[in-house]
Amino acid sequence: MTDPIRELEDVLGPQGCLTGSRVTETRIWDASGAPWQPPLALLRPASVAEVSAALAICHRHGLPVVPQGGLTGLAGGAMPCAEGVALSLSRFAGVEEIDADAGVMVVRAGTVLATAQKAAGDAGFLLPIDLGARGSCQIGGIVSTNAGGVRVIRQGTTRDNVLGLEAVLADGKVLSHLMRVMKDNTGYDLRNLIIGSEGTLAVVTRAVLRLRPLPPASETALCALADYAAVLRLLAMARGRVVLSAFEAMWRDHFIMSGGLGMFSGPPSFAVLIEVEGPGLETLLETAFEAGLITDALVARSDADARRFWDVRASERATRSLKGLHNLDVSLPVARMDEFATACARAVRRLDPGAECYFFGHIGDSNLHAMIDLPNHGNAGDRLDRIAYDLVQAMGGSISAEHGIGTLKRSWLNHSRSADEIAAMRAIKSALDPKGILNAGKVI
Amino acid sequence: MTDPIRELEDVLGPQGCLTGSRVTETRIWDASGAPWQPPLALLRPASVAEVSAALAICHRHGLPVVPQGGLTGLAGGAMPCAEGVALSLSRFAGVEEIDADAGVMVVRAGTVLATAQKAAGDAGFLLPIDLGARGSCQIGGIVSTNAGGVRVIRQGTTRDNVLGLEAVLADGKVLSHLMRVMKDNTGYDLRNLIIGSEGTLAVVTRAVLRLRPLPPASETALCALADYAAVLRLLAMARGRVVLSAFEAMWRDHFIMSGGLGMFSGPPSFAVLIEVEGPGLETLLETAFEAGLITDALVARSDADARRFWDVRASERATRSLKGLHNLDVSLPVARMDEFATACARAVRRLDPGAECYFFGHIGDSNLHAMIDLPNHGNAGDRLDRIAYDLVQAMGGSISAEHGIGTLKRSWLNHSRSADEIAAMRAIKSALDPKGILNAGKVI
Repeated sequence: MTDPIRELEDVLGPQGCLTGSRVTETRIWDASGAPWQPPLALLRPASVAEVSAALAICHRHGLPVVPQGGLTGLAGGAMPCAEGVALSLSRFAGVEEIDADAGVMVVRAGTVLATAQKAAGDAGFLLPIDLGARGSCQIGGIVSTNAGGVRVIRQGTTRDNVLGLEAVLADGKVLSHLMRVMKDNTGYDLRNLIIGSEGTLAVVTRAVLRLRPLPPASETALCALADYAAVLRLLAMARGRVVLSAFEAMWRDHFIMSGGLGMFSGPPSFAVLIEVEGPGLETLLETAFEAGLITDALVARSDADARRFWDVRASERATRSLKGLHNLDVSLPVARMDEFATACARAVRRLDPGAECYFFGHIGDSNLHAMIDLPNHGNAGDRLDRIAYDLVQAMGGSISAEHGIGTLKRSWLNHSRSADEIAAMRAIKSALDPKGILNAGKVI
Repeated sequence: MTDPIRELEDVLGPQGCLTGSRVTETRIWDASGAPWQPPLALLRPASVAEVSAALAICHRHGLPVVPQGGLTGLAGGAMPCAEGVALSLSRFAGVEEIDADAGVMVVRAGTVLATAQKAAGDAGFLLPIDLGARGSCQIGGIVSTNAGGVRVIRQGTTRDNVLGLEAVLADGKVLSHLMRVMKDNTGYDLRNLIIGSEGTLAVVTRAVLRLRPLPPASETALCALADYAAVLRLLAMARGRVVLSAFEAMWRDHFIMSGGLGMFSGPPSFAVLIEVEGPGLETLLETAFEAGLITDALVARSDADARRFWDVRASERATRSLKGLHNLDVSLPVARMDEFATACARAVRRLDPGAECYFFGHIGDSNLHAMIDLPNHGNAGDRLDRIAYDLVQAMGGSISAEHGIGTLKRSWLNHSRSADEIAAMRAIKSALDPKGILNAGKVI
């Protein structure tokens, strides 16, 4: 049999198949910190036909393929391995069409999210997907990981905003179903099966994304609350009265650590950032104050104010200053989030008395994040995961709300899915990728 | 090997396994008019464990199983066959829990939709799924067919409102993932794979459905428009200004046939029923009138007025008076719907010069329906389908927007899905149901 890399070079050309130092000089690792190795080659196909041809070669040789997007993932799903190739869609980028009548955009997998957002905005629409990594994450990765982000409470996850999808199976077959309509009951939902499968079932090449009308101006406030019961009641009250575009809670330690001290007279037990589309925020805050739900509130009078509130939530200061942080991304029934935080912090401090736990999250989406600093047990990540995921399992949550499974959560998948579910996933994987070449060793 | 029916009787008891005249005295056919035969038995398990035990027996014997819901489907998906058994979940019914904090309802597959809607309403919520068959269709069937209905423009399809799912595989394994949170990226999306698979991959037993806050009072109007371009412009204008909960268009012949004559001074080319949540309808109509988009409008002053408008849209009169009607349910790019209607009517009249074509649809969802009467060619359904689905394919639409594939559209599936897509679906089917017992011969 011929050398697969030689075959790939023949088909993809010198720009489409990097080897040797041309690979190692390229950034080929994601943002997770998971282990990785330089691959045999970095494939950079420039068309769907090239993706198909490249995968057909890899399939014939049984050569593992690691699909890569913008390399911003936190679960290790894009980390390359030494015995296979990495495949980037960066050269297959761009918005192909904006269909204003249908309210959709056809976009290539290698397109950076911010580029797609700008094109939608220029056409008078909102692209409803948004996340912190917008400047480098790519549509293919966003779709493959079913990315969440900061607009989920209003716009849903990526899954909710993909109408049509094109993806290439392990053997090179192109499944192209670039539908622009929202209702389509024609057989199995291959689209949703591929979305969120983290590159283990197919390589996403193009997507039809839903666009929304530009929203009305939003108003932003930062509220101080005395306890978690008040957070829950404020969320319920807000849902009934305004159009929420964000409802982000910070537990006390997070609020202090990320620079909130001084924003209120004494740090509150909980700070909640509320963003509302259209009118109604001030009336809501007055009603909440009268009902005793909030003890104080700051309303943004300018974009600069709103950015200041978001900066506290984004906790950039923490991620810069704290080394060896462990990140958590879990879903929990919203009513039990504080119970989780309390139990988790208590158990973590038994592990390391100097531990610091900073809880925050997209509460309106049932999504809790935490940054946990173990100054004396930097390598206790596995024990920390056990503490957190045992609690998540007991409380009926999900061990991955939005970051996916990748390699880092693979051994914990059984905390959220049963053995029979994982067996069904494996059967599907074998059916669509019988040689197991696509992102081998990830997810399941 | 023992007799499978005897084994099923042993496990399910006399109420759980009907045979002989006890089957033929029961209604076991759906609303599609597709061919069917009395099954060997009608299984009526009363628990998930019984569903699992029954399927394990059928799987061991290779006995075909046709899952049935409320038998309101129009594609033949629930039609029984002589060589297998039918399986109804009617005895596994009821709302198990309403979780107000999470905003979800846990409901058994055999529950009639109207029962679940009432339970949600009593708890102060809206169950966002609604369709004409609400009085008899069941949650299991709704989920298995990804039912659409009259609220899709505002609330999405069934798929968009199922957070957690429990279903039993062909071999009896129970996949239970009754999540109550909206963000869950833990492996493959088995939930969406099973939703809409029309009972060919698993038997749905329970679902966690999303509940929404009760909407504000709605306002309803019936508008007259001179051409389809005005319909499109009115839709775009409405989307930017009000919260649409319905935008239903009727082509002229449909409007006349279903009793609209006399509502305006002369029947308009298009009538559009608009329903708006909250305020803004009258202002919208004034703006649309000034812009020349509508020539006339009737605003409902009472619930009785609104019902009268909906009655015209529901076209009950037509379905009662016309025999041998052929129904169409397709998705099309909204901009091309009138082009489709014109071309379809022209071709149909070449088939039968006496043909009548009544077009209407959930235009805001890209979903067009038609009732087509062929007085001289009542048996030309297949030729009619070819006319319609060839046009749908050429225009980038879907041959099934909301009714599914079942048996009636199975031979047309290749008009919406490629051979490679259908092969991928078959591979998944074989992986999850290797003996092919679940709803054999349906969908793919």
